[in-house]
Amino acid sequence: MTTNDWSVPETDVFERIRTVLDAGSEAVLATVVAVEGSAYRRPGAKMLVDPAGGGAGSITAGCLEDEVRELAADVLAAGEPRTETWDLTGDDDVWGMGVGCNGVITVLLEPLTESYRTVAAARERGEDVGVAAVVGGDLPLGARAVYRPGRGFDADGDGGEDDLPAWLREAVADPLDRLLERGASETVTLEGEEGTVEVFLDAVTAPPELVVFGAGHDTGPVVELATLVDFRVTVVTFRGGRAGRDRYPRADEVVSAAPRDVATLREWDDDTYAVVMTHNFVDDRLTLAELLETPVAYVGLMGPEKRFREMREALAEEGVELTPADLERVYTPIGLNLGGDTPYRIAYSIVAELLAVANDRTPDHLGRSRGPIHDRVDVSTD
Amino acid sequence: MTTNDWSVPETDVFERIRTVLDAGSEAVLATVVAVEGSAYRRPGAKMLVDPAGGGAGSITAGCLEDEVRELAADVLAAGEPRTETWDLTGDDDVWGMGVGCNGVITVLLEPLTESYRTVAAARERGEDVGVAAVVGGDLPLGARAVYRPGRGFDADGDGGEDDLPAWLREAVADPLDRLLERGASETVTLEGEEGTVEVFLDAVTAPPELVVFGAGHDTGPVVELATLVDFRVTVVTFRGGRAGRDRYPRADEVVSAAPRDVATLREWDDDTYAVVMTHNFVDDRLTLAELLETPVAYVGLMGPEKRFREMREALAEEGVELTPADLERVYTPIGLNLGGDTPYRIAYSIVAELLAVANDRTPDHLGRSRGPIHDRVDVSTD
Repeated sequence: MTTNDWSVPETDVFERIRTVLDAGSEAVLATVVAVEGSAYRRPGAKMLVDPAGGGAGSITAGCLEDEVRELAADVLAAGEPRTETWDLTGDDDVWGMGVGCNGVITVLLEPLTESYRTVAAARERGEDVGVAAVVGGDLPLGARAVYRPGRGFDADGDGGEDDLPAWLREAVADPLDRLLERGASETVTLEGEEGTVEVFLDAVTAPPELVVFGAGHDTGPVVELATLVDFRVTVVTFRGGRAGRDRYPRADEVVSAAPRDVATLREWDDDTYAVVMTHNFVDDRLTLAELLETPVAYVGLMGPEKRFREMREALAEEGVELTPADLERVYTPIGLNLGGDTPYRIAYSIVAELLAVANDRTPDHLGRSRGPIHDRVDVSTD
Repeated sequence: MTTNDWSVPETDVFERIRTVLDAGSEAVLATVVAVEGSAYRRPGAKMLVDPAGGGAGSITAGCLEDEVRELAADVLAAGEPRTETWDLTGDDDVWGMGVGCNGVITVLLEPLTESYRTVAAARERGEDVGVAAVVGGDLPLGARAVYRPGRGFDADGDGGEDDLPAWLREAVADPLDRLLERGASETVTLEGEEGTVEVFLDAVTAPPELVVFGAGHDTGPVVELATLVDFRVTVVTFRGGRAGRDRYPRADEVVSAAPRDVATLREWDDDTYAVVMTHNFVDDRLTLAELLETPVAYVGLMGPEKRFREMREALAEEGVELTPADLERVYTPIGLNLGGDTPYRIAYSIVAELLAVANDRTPDHLGRSRGPIHDRVDVSTD
C-alpha cells in the first residue's frame, strides 16, 4: 500500500495496525470519538499515521488529515495520548459548509500500543470486541480496557493495559454490549470515585461474513468487490474445482467441500451471507437446502426465477418444502436491479444487495424525494 | 493482467485488443452473436483468446470457455472465421439447468484483424460504433463493415475490410442506429441478391462518462469502482489541488480547472454523469450551476439535504433559480441507501446509483416479490 493510500477498506487499517505492531514500529492511532453536526465519518472511524508520513484510513474527507498528521508527530514525541477538538461550524469560508467539515469533531490521538493487537486479532477472527478508553475528565487520558461480549474485560496478558477502575468497567459493560449490537460507538460521561470521566466506548464489530459458492470466472469480481466494502470472504468450491488462494487472492479463505457438508462446514450465524453461484443445478440445490438449515440471514441464488421454481419442485420431490421464513431469506434472481451484463456489473449488483441486506436498508436513492421542492421531505443521512 | 484474468471490465477487453494489434500478435475474437433461452451474457459479449492460452473477457460463466479456447486454436490454424452453436437446453446433467448454460448460444470466432482497431479506437474516443458481420448464409462468413452513426459505413483506409455489398449496408444502417440507441446487439436475416444472409449487428456503445469533481481522499474509491463497471472516468480538480494521473491511476483523465469554466470544460452530453464532491461549498455551488447549463443526465451532490437547501438559497441570491427539470437531475444526498460510512462503502453507494441512473433502472431487489409463494410474480431478468 502506498503512502498515499489513505482511503482503504477498514480491514486494511486493521491489517496495517498489525503490520506496524509486528515490525515494532511507531505509529499514532487517531480515532474519532465524538461528532456534533455534519461529519464525514462517525465515532469509531480510525486513521493510522506513521512518522514517515504514511499510514492508512481517513477520518474526515480531507479537511483535517494534514492537521492530524502534524499532531501525530507531536504525540509520538510526547509519547502520550491527547485529544483534539475542531469546531468548524459557522465557518463560512473555504471549509465551512463543506461536506463533513461543518460540525464539531473530537479525535483521540495515541501512540499505537500492543493492547491494540488484541482488538485487531479479535476482529480478524470474526469476533466483536469493545474498547473503553478515557478521553477526558479525572482519569488518565487514554487509559483503556478491552471488552469481549460474554467474557467481560480482559485483565490478563495484554501488557497491563487495564487501567480502568472496576466501577468504570462495570458501568460500561452493558452499554458496550448494546453498542456492539448496533455497530455504533460513542463517548459517555460517567461519575465515579475519582470524579467525572468521559469514556469513549468503541464498538469494533467484526466484519460481516460472505460465503461464495462457486469457482467460475464470475466469482472473482464478487470476491473483489465484497472485500473492498469490508466483507470477510470465504470461497467454497466443489468437485475439486479450481480452488486456491492464488485464484482468489483477495478472499480471506478458499475451501474445497462437498455440497452435503455445507451445513456443518463452519460456524454459521445471522451476520453471514451466502451467494450460491456454482452454475450447477444439483450443487446449487443441495447447497440451498443445506444453507436453509443454518441461521444465515441471506441466501442469494444466481439464475432466473424459473430455475428457482424448478429447484423448489425438485426439493419437494425429496420431501423438502420451503417455509415462508425460508423464502424470506432466499434472494433470487440475485442482486439489485442496476442493469448491465458484464461480470463486474453483475457482481456489483450482487454486492450492492449484500450491503443493503447486511445494513438493513431499503436500497432506494438517498435523495429519494425526487420531485419539485415542495414535495421534498427532509431526508437526513444516517 | 494475468492469463487467468478472464473476468475483467469490458474496457480491458478492448484495451487488450489494441495491445495485441499493436504487438502484431495473433489472437481470436469470440463474440456471442445469438442467444435463445437463458444465457449468462447477451449478444455482443466478447472474449479474446491468444495462442499462449491467455486472453480477456468471458462469454459464458464458465461452461464453454474451455471449448472456446480449443476452437480458437483451430481458427488460428485455419486462418478463417467460423461460427459454433451450443445447444444446452434439456441437458439435465452437470451443465443442464445451470445458470447461463441452459440455452442455445451461437458464437462467431475469428482471427483478430486490423479492422477491429477502428472499433476499439472509436470506443476509446467515446464514440458509438456499429459493426455488421456475416455469420451465415450466402456471403463469406466474417465479412464485415464498420458503421459510424451519422457518418455511415467506413469504406476507406481500414484495410479493405468493407466486404459487404451496398444493398446490405443500406439495409442495416437504420437497424444499427436503433440498436446503438438501445445498447443491444442482435443477428438478423436478410434477403438479397446473393441469397439469404445472416448478419450480426453489433452495437459497440461507448462507455458512459463519469466526471468527478474533487481531490479528497474519498475520490479514489469512486474512480476505482466506477472504472470496474466500465465508466470512462475524468477527475476534475480545482485550485491546483493534488491533480495528477499518479494519484488516480485508474482514471482515464485528470484535469485541473476553475469552477466557472466547467460548462465549457468538455463536450457534455446526456450519457455523462457528474459527481460533485469538492468538500468546498463555494466550489460545489459554482460547479452545480455550471453543470445545470449542460445536458448532463445526472448531478450527484455529496452532503446532507440541508447543505443543498443552503446552496439553493445562495444561488437564488445570485438570481439563479433551479427549475423542476434542474431538480430532477440533481441527486442529493448522493447515492443509494446501502448503509455504511467508510470511504469505499460511500463510494459503492454512489457508483450503484450511477449504474441505476445510467441504465435507467429502479434499484430494487431483482427478486422483488419477496413474499410467500402465492404473492410472487414472475420476475424476468433483463
